[in-house]
Amino acid sequence: MARIASALDQTSPANPVDVDYVITYRYGTADKEASMKQFEKLVEALGSVGLATEVRPGEDLSLLVFVKEASEEHLHGEVYRSRVKDWIHNVRSEAPEKETKKALEAEPLYEAERLRIIYQLITNSKSDGGAGVTPKSGEWKDVEAIFALHDRDFNRKWIKQLSSSYLLNIHQLDEIRNRFGEKVAFYFAFIQSYFQFLLYIAAIGASAWAILGHFSPIYAIINGLGCIAWTEYWKHQEVDLAIRWGVRNVSKIESQRQTFTYTKETTDPVTGEKMRYFSPFARLQRQLLQIPFALVVVTLFGCLIAMCFGIEVFISEVYNGPLKSILVFIPTGILTTTMPILTGVLQVLARKLTDFENYETEGAYATALTQKLFVMDLVTSYWAIFLTAFVYVPFGNVIVPYLDVFALTVQPFAEHDKQMQIPERFNINPDRLRKQVIYFTVTAQIVNFLLELIVPIVKRRGTAKYKQMKSEYAMKHGGAAPQASDNDSAEEAEFLASVRKQAELPAYDVGTDIREMVIQFGYLALWSVVWPLTACSFVINDWIELRADAVKICVEYQRPIPTRTDTIGPWLDSLSFLTWLGSLTTAALVYMFSNDGVGRDGTPHAIKGWAILLTIFTAEQTFLVVRWAVRTSISKIDSSGRQKERAQKFMVRKRYIDESVAESNKITPVLDVGPAKLDRESLENIAREGTLHKSNSSDRFWARQRGWRETAQVGSNLIERYYPANETKKEQ
Amino acid sequence: MARIASALDQTSPANPVDVDYVITYRYGTADKEASMKQFEKLVEALGSVGLATEVRPGEDLSLLVFVKEASEEHLHGEVYRSRVKDWIHNVRSEAPEKETKKALEAEPLYEAERLRIIYQLITNSKSDGGAGVTPKSGEWKDVEAIFALHDRDFNRKWIKQLSSSYLLNIHQLDEIRNRFGEKVAFYFAFIQSYFQFLLYIAAIGASAWAILGHFSPIYAIINGLGCIAWTEYWKHQEVDLAIRWGVRNVSKIESQRQTFTYTKETTDPVTGEKMRYFSPFARLQRQLLQIPFALVVVTLFGCLIAMCFGIEVFISEVYNGPLKSILVFIPTGILTTTMPILTGVLQVLARKLTDFENYETEGAYATALTQKLFVMDLVTSYWAIFLTAFVYVPFGNVIVPYLDVFALTVQPFAEHDKQMQIPERFNINPDRLRKQVIYFTVTAQIVNFLLELIVPIVKRRGTAKYKQMKSEYAMKHGGAAPQASDNDSAEEAEFLASVRKQAELPAYDVGTDIREMVIQFGYLALWSVVWPLTACSFVINDWIELRADAVKICVEYQRPIPTRTDTIGPWLDSLSFLTWLGSLTTAALVYMFSNDGVGRDGTPHAIKGWAILLTIFTAEQTFLVVRWAVRTSISKIDSSGRQKERAQKFMVRKRYIDESVAESNKITPVLDVGPAKLDRESLENIAREGTLHKSNSSDRFWARQRGWRETAQVGSNLIERYYPANETKKEQ
Repeated sequence: MARIASALDQTSPANPVDVDYVITYRYGTADKEASMKQFEKLVEALGSVGLATEVRPGEDLSLLVFVKEASEEHLHGEVYRSRVKDWIHNVRSEAPEKETKKALEAEPLYEAERLRIIYQLITNSKSDGGAGVTPKSGEWKDVEAIFALHDRDFNRKWIKQLSSSYLLNIHQLDEIRNRFGEKVAFYFAFIQSYFQFLLYIAAIGASAWAILGHFSPIYAIINGLGCIAWTEYWKHQEVDLAIRWGVRNVSKIESQRQTFTYTKETTDPVTGEKMRYFSPFARLQRQLLQIPFALVVVTLFGCLIAMCFGIEVFISEVYNGPLKSILVFIPTGILTTTMPILTGVLQVLARKLTDFENYETEGAYATALTQKLFVMDLVTSYWAIFLTAFVYVPFGNVIVPYLDVFALTVQPFAEHDKQMQIPERFNINPDRLRKQVIYFTVTAQIVNFLLELIVPIVKRRGTAKYKQMKSEYAMKHGGAAPQASDNDSAEEAEFLASVRKQAELPAYDVGTDIREMVIQFGYLALWSVVWPLTACSFVINDWIELRADAVKICVEYQRPIPTRTDTIGPWLDSLSFLTWLGSLTTAALVYMFSNDGVGRDGTPHAIKGWAILLTIFTAEQTFLVVRWAVRTSISKIDSSGRQKERAQKFMVRKRYIDESVAESNKITPVLDVGPAKLDRESLENIAREGTLHKSNSSDRFWARQRGWRETAQVGSNLIERYYPANETKKEQ
Repeated sequence: MARIASALDQTSPANPVDVDYVITYRYGTADKEASMKQFEKLVEALGSVGLATEVRPGEDLSLLVFVKEASEEHLHGEVYRSRVKDWIHNVRSEAPEKETKKALEAEPLYEAERLRIIYQLITNSKSDGGAGVTPKSGEWKDVEAIFALHDRDFNRKWIKQLSSSYLLNIHQLDEIRNRFGEKVAFYFAFIQSYFQFLLYIAAIGASAWAILGHFSPIYAIINGLGCIAWTEYWKHQEVDLAIRWGVRNVSKIESQRQTFTYTKETTDPVTGEKMRYFSPFARLQRQLLQIPFALVVVTLFGCLIAMCFGIEVFISEVYNGPLKSILVFIPTGILTTTMPILTGVLQVLARKLTDFENYETEGAYATALTQKLFVMDLVTSYWAIFLTAFVYVPFGNVIVPYLDVFALTVQPFAEHDKQMQIPERFNINPDRLRKQVIYFTVTAQIVNFLLELIVPIVKRRGTAKYKQMKSEYAMKHGGAAPQASDNDSAEEAEFLASVRKQAELPAYDVGTDIREMVIQFGYLALWSVVWPLTACSFVINDWIELRADAVKICVEYQRPIPTRTDTIGPWLDSLSFLTWLGSLTTAALVYMFSNDGVGRDGTPHAIKGWAILLTIFTAEQTFLVVRWAVRTSISKIDSSGRQKERAQKFMVRKRYIDESVAESNKITPVLDVGPAKLDRESLENIAREGTLHKSNSSDRFWARQRGWRETAQVGSNLIERYYPANETKKEQ
């Protein structure tokens, strides 16, 4: 903890000068005049939207432009406009107060809102009232980054609070939202909700492991139910959080991506605003490229993993020559060297493909990219276990004899051919599946965690050390290159040094962290029936993960720019997909291995094709029905957030009609109830006479009985006429 | 047509007296005083809400109370209140004009709206501003019916128009909505949309039948796709129609059912209104009874049909004794006698069960009831074909030998046992499946149609004849019972006679007709691959059906009371369910019989359990993916209705903020752009000096460069510092 605290101190000193953003401007890429002109344009653009600027030298041929909102009044105007826009677009259900001042008093500005609005002021196009500065694209390609400065005091307090609390409460989430914006807050809410769910599953899993053993159908059912229930419940929670944070439907009002290209301009039929148009059919054609892409991904990764799997099986279960314990790591070696390269290449390809698909909004872009990455994740994360469960175990005896092609890999080390010969009666290793699941859910998680948190720290320290050594070397050998900090005033020196450090940090992408959690959820949904302690491992992992992510955000990345969202986004679909897939794999696994039903030779008891298909089919139907039931039940759950929203909507309308209905209420029902103290018999006659002179048959019809009393009397007469007759009959 | 025209004349004469509703009040069930008192209460209640009343004697101890709105102004007030309420509850997206008069001028009252509002005035509870008259329940059990009078002229014109037009256009649907209300209009829109869909499928089916033969996988795929696409498209159309008719979300503001019983009263957290509460968990417990109910239905019907199926197979394919051609009708006889009784009993049970489940709104009640009826429909409509396809054909050889138990049914007629002996090598009849599908999709449809349209006419004529004869007989034998028409004034006689006729007609329930169409759709989705001409038969049937339904509404039923709805209701789920089920049955059928793959002995080529399961499983996955894709695509389709709605919502909010934003716009961005014509070098020095005396480090930081021009110049200096150095280096 002490190390982290010192890291916090190093990277995020207090912000004593009220800087809203720092913009890194890189020069030296073009000729002098162009650089200077573009820089002038940058500060002019910033000045034109009411931002105050200061410039200081940065590291490695860069300038640091410090930006703050010059006038609080102007900022409040912007905030108010943004809130009104939200209301028009149904993001807010409550209309803001009609006066700016009152509105800001009623709902004070929070830090993330301030930063978001200033960021929009910098990056929005000029037609939207912004400065139109878009980092790294178009004429602003020299603008390398826009970032806010870390708040050392808050960060320190926050990390301390997190590491001492068992669960995050809603106020802590609110605090995250107020500081880092809704997107980051949604991630923390998500991991928190997932963690709570894991606690239950871990308890059940541990009991199942102790009492029921592996492949227990009971555990499978509970786990499946739990996954469905939590996924659906999270969707419910999302809506509630979105209402709480006033960002419901915010994903619908996203502004266009700067790089979106359009074929024609149209006018929005609703708002009358100009809209850029790109034919969805042209996009659909481009989207079709996703199919070959997915095929390439699946084939490449699939074959690579299958090959390594084959080699591994061969070496560990067939080969019995020298160096076996070392050679067995060959496949791991192949994977760890080729996978990152392949993944990198394919990720670039996925990004290119998504660029080409030309989406209008960041949301649509993110969804499309996520889908592609998810296909990759599916193969890289679950394919190896799939091979063990559904290829190696049932067909091992058939397939292993063909693995002698992999003898090549060990030939140089084998002393004689017998060491590489596949025994006639090959016994598959029944423990392989469990070991593999444990590897992926424990070992890999730990390794991943270390890579994620420790490596960047080490790397950063290393770079700093290297730089220091380099400059010391240059000092010693004369002619030291001029340092950015050379001309810093003493007062600013410490502050500027910290800003320069932050400028070198990468930008934080919350998507990566969500993706990691979704993949983890996949192991639980798909394979935890193999080893019910999976959730226990995840509980420990995730408790640390949440805190580590907080440290990461504070130490290893630039402060995230507050972004609004009302969901964790496309990953939601991935969760649903994994739950569904889990219902299939779990059912198949339970059928194949239930009661540890592995025979003496390691093969499960005779697996029947139709029986396994029937199991999977039934499981899927059950899944669909259960999900429908759970969804219906959860949709019936009301919440204070939803009630608040309805009440606000109702109030807006009520306020509007209060004025108008007052007028309509003046009309009161006209009751033509006249006193009818007339003799019964004469009533109708009078009426008839009275209307004989009228011309209209309708008027005559309606005038025969005036008022309800007359109708009642005539009716009574008619009823009476029946009764005496009836009574007379009875007497007869 | 002439007959129908005369029927129209008989039952729906012109309404010359502007009657809004007629209420049938039955007396003679209780003692005289109670009847008279309750009648007085009735007309008083009607009078108290501003309705004019007239009473006339009706048939069979009943009184006919004629009701009309006494004051147009009062009516307009009610209409306006209803529209404002709609807007508050989000049914309308456009706020009504603030003045009643203007609002009614902008959107004139249509007939169905008028009738609906008066009906609400009669039936709504007193706390909701109505008279609280609820026919057939509670204290109003003697109020037998409330019905509006047919408009003879319109009916005649309408039927004529329908029978001469090929398809209904949207204006004709609007007309139906204006006359009979949204619920009926939705049915016509539904059958119309279904008919258009059928036209395509019929064309494809006919080509498939001619070119591809039966069980063509190509036809199966196109048909499945078509069913999915149409179901999803209809949902899209529903929303559009709901917007067009201003009834979107109307199902959410339904008032409570009169018979709903509550356990406690709570306050609505949103509107502050009092709400009646019945625990959903208590209801859930009651709903669990649906499971035994469904089991009983499935078992009873399933066994009955299976038994008749067995008898039929036995007689037609085993028995070869005398009277075979007559005996073969035994199962039909059993079914036609027992089924209606059983159906009747179970329908009553379903209704009782749904009553017991105690739903709050009519919508929820209808959904629950529909679900139960749908289970019955599933078994009664499709079980027989299912038995043939999936039991008789694949397992016929195994099962038929056990059918000798049914020999009992023909024993009395058989001459010797040999006639009833099952041959050792029994060949199943490969044509049975096709014949059965043709029977259900052609013969049964025609029979059903005749039963539905002709029988009631005949019945009604018969009753009239019987009554006439009876009264003639009474006349001849003296002491004729007093006729209701005895005291009619000459002027009113014809009109009253027609009203008395209408009073005896049953009330129209649109649900029955929708249900019929849904079942028909089921044959198409589930079995049409057996006989691709199915859709052709349906096209003809439905063209007539639509017109016949119109005639039915005009002639055989009381005029429907206009009801609002924004959907065809729970049947929508049934459509989705049938599409899903269709994907399974069709896949299985294609696998089993593709290429007319029936062997010599009538059995299909070896059917493998795993293969059929794999086919079904694949079909289902494909179905889910395709439906998701279709749903996504259709959700992207915009429509003028949706645009209109968005525009209206936008306008309401815009109007509200137009006032408020004006004020906030007064704040204009403050640009601190001072002229900076200073010498570059001196700039920073001046700034520094100027700020030395300031105490705050932040102020000092921000004061070093005043305005963006100074920042630009300092930046330029910093950039320049690099370039000369660089250039010098190059020179070296």
